[in-house]
Amino acid sequence: MQVLIYENLSQEQKREALKRPVMSVKEEIKDIVENIISEVKQRGDEALVEQALKFDKAQISSVKISNEELNEASKRVDESLKEAIKTACENIKKFHQAQLKESVRVETSKGVWCELLTRPIEKVGLYIPAGSAPLFSTALMLAIPAKIAKCEKIVLASPAKINDTVLFCARLCGVDEVYQMGGAGAIAALAYGSQSVLKVDKIFGPGNAFVTEAKRQVSSDIMGASIDMQAGPSEVLVIADEAANATFVASDLLSQAEHGADSQVILVCLSKEFAKKTQEELTIQLEKLPRKEIALKSLEHSKIFIAKDLNEALEISNAYAPEHLILQTQNPRELLSGVKHAGSVFLGAYSPESMGDYASGTNHVLPTYGLTKTHSSLNLMDFMKTMSVQELSVDGFKNLAKSVELMAEAECLHAHKNAVSLRLEALRNE
Amino acid sequence: MQVLIYENLSQEQKREALKRPVMSVKEEIKDIVENIISEVKQRGDEALVEQALKFDKAQISSVKISNEELNEASKRVDESLKEAIKTACENIKKFHQAQLKESVRVETSKGVWCELLTRPIEKVGLYIPAGSAPLFSTALMLAIPAKIAKCEKIVLASPAKINDTVLFCARLCGVDEVYQMGGAGAIAALAYGSQSVLKVDKIFGPGNAFVTEAKRQVSSDIMGASIDMQAGPSEVLVIADEAANATFVASDLLSQAEHGADSQVILVCLSKEFAKKTQEELTIQLEKLPRKEIALKSLEHSKIFIAKDLNEALEISNAYAPEHLILQTQNPRELLSGVKHAGSVFLGAYSPESMGDYASGTNHVLPTYGLTKTHSSLNLMDFMKTMSVQELSVDGFKNLAKSVELMAEAECLHAHKNAVSLRLEALRNE
Repeated sequence: MQVLIYENLSQEQKREALKRPVMSVKEEIKDIVENIISEVKQRGDEALVEQALKFDKAQISSVKISNEELNEASKRVDESLKEAIKTACENIKKFHQAQLKESVRVETSKGVWCELLTRPIEKVGLYIPAGSAPLFSTALMLAIPAKIAKCEKIVLASPAKINDTVLFCARLCGVDEVYQMGGAGAIAALAYGSQSVLKVDKIFGPGNAFVTEAKRQVSSDIMGASIDMQAGPSEVLVIADEAANATFVASDLLSQAEHGADSQVILVCLSKEFAKKTQEELTIQLEKLPRKEIALKSLEHSKIFIAKDLNEALEISNAYAPEHLILQTQNPRELLSGVKHAGSVFLGAYSPESMGDYASGTNHVLPTYGLTKTHSSLNLMDFMKTMSVQELSVDGFKNLAKSVELMAEAECLHAHKNAVSLRLEALRNE
Repeated sequence: MQVLIYENLSQEQKREALKRPVMSVKEEIKDIVENIISEVKQRGDEALVEQALKFDKAQISSVKISNEELNEASKRVDESLKEAIKTACENIKKFHQAQLKESVRVETSKGVWCELLTRPIEKVGLYIPAGSAPLFSTALMLAIPAKIAKCEKIVLASPAKINDTVLFCARLCGVDEVYQMGGAGAIAALAYGSQSVLKVDKIFGPGNAFVTEAKRQVSSDIMGASIDMQAGPSEVLVIADEAANATFVASDLLSQAEHGADSQVILVCLSKEFAKKTQEELTIQLEKLPRKEIALKSLEHSKIFIAKDLNEALEISNAYAPEHLILQTQNPRELLSGVKHAGSVFLGAYSPESMGDYASGTNHVLPTYGLTKTHSSLNLMDFMKTMSVQELSVDGFKNLAKSVELMAEAECLHAHKNAVSLRLEALRNE
């Protein structure tokens, strides 16, 4: 890891050092995805079955998983893992349940009532990638809030053959239908429907470059589906002061690094000595990791910044706007009010990222690539939307009528004005 | 307006009747916008000054409006209009202030605290189109929530020469900087910055096809800016029962129709007689409208549905998912719980759309084109984002440790497991 003393850098060098690698989608991928989507739109299930064989080397007779298959798969999951998952589930439920909002209702002026009501999104599709590891925890992170939001239909897709634990989680969380389909084809089927796949309103979940591009394409088509967010490589920034445990810090950096060769890992600490200690720890811990090669590649383009104090450390973090922010300092809560942009924040030595990834209760689907500057961590409201309501009594109407007439006229919208004027007149004639 | 008896239609005919016109962006527009954006990125202010002359026929010496200009413009606004605007302002403030949320904090399991905190988006850009009418009300709808959210920098752009009332509203709402620039060039400058324009994180506001396309382009560039929402033609659906006043209903349909030839206007009523009465009223009221030609064109592709009862009326509305939904029925509040998708709902005879457009307090920036199925009406949270926080005590950590180890192992993420295991070991050695 490259070590940089932040205050020695020019503005330009600071920007450069905190820049993320360019994320460009190859034209080739765009074309492949376009073809896959059009195949699924035209031939539905037939195309999905072919794609399962071609991309996932799986011979399937039907896209939809039957209830028996769900039950059988669940039986095969180890009991102790089931218990662990249920523990995680309870925490995730509690945190997302707490996000249910009272509706807003306020009398803005006498006789004028305005409300903000929430409504669930009707049909949601959850995509769980398979790839190098079966990410059943993501199924929990998506299905639990969907259920709390009371989405009417919750469907889940994952490449064939779907991991037993993913199926167990789907069943546990009350997912309505599960489809064995993966990649761009799965996203297309969720967005447009097929003989056995329900067309959904919004698609959630991570995936590889093909899935991400497919989500981009279907969401830019008004006849397609909305999506949760664009996903980039995962990333962590750790702020550690002199009181931090370098062994712990190194383990958290590696948790992130093992996700992928393109993962971004940043340490901000206050001395060269701490940086050195952490690097030594990294070397030791790396040796034992099965995913060592991946982690090593990620560390190659990762950085350690030496900040002159915790204020500068926060400045670095806010400029980077990390997905995960770990504060391993003596008084992490003191720093929290200065955190402007982050997806999820982990306070103190015993709140490693792993806890949030699985079981603390927070959602692990978070904005990446600096999008924390404008986007929220996935939360209950992503499965709902708000609509406003207004109700005016005759007096409330009368009180505002003149103002609205004047404003409509000044905007040259005479029909808007007229809708008020003729009501006023009707009231005068009563 | 075409009159259709809903229950006589086949499923296919129903879908067809509720379909919106295809909204396709011409390749020509895409290219023009791409060029304008690249001009602004390369030459900044110089390009903006040229574009003001070319597109808005305005000779400007600087892009930024000075404080004196703001003050002078404000003086020229009629006092009675100023008062009307201030009344609207107060209501909009009250409603959006009421949307400020308590942060969520919950102990998900013993010693495990999870929080959801909100943070303002730092820099926001508000775009106010000029076009056929100066939409100063939109300046209120965007600047007021931005201020309540405590965005650090609020800037506003509108084509030269900016209408005095728009400038008055900007000043009234505490906008930090105002730029005289319009169209795709303005969006580009907000997204990438220029010598005098501040680069913002998120761009809000409506606009013509060029503005919409520019917003699409800058938001799909990770180095650009986020946007509020994609805007389509404005639309209203009115549900009227036999008790409704056909004169009022017609005036509300026309308020929408005068927005543009592509505006969508739908009436759902319970009898042919009411449909006929409304059409007669439309003809009478149309005669007096300065924007008659526009409204007529909009009405040409608009529809009246005869529903067999209010339940079917709601079914029609939910299938269409309108931007504005007006309920002119005897007990509109009874219908409200059945409304699944709408941007803003207007209850009863004295809550015409004009009230919400200007002064009731609700926001008039709303999802169109069926996007109310997945998107919220513009609200305070669009100017903020949430981040989650977790803090585990040593006991909290210990309680969850085993579960997280098991889950991480099952996902083959050994570094995630290790971050937990070595902390457990450290605790044992203490």
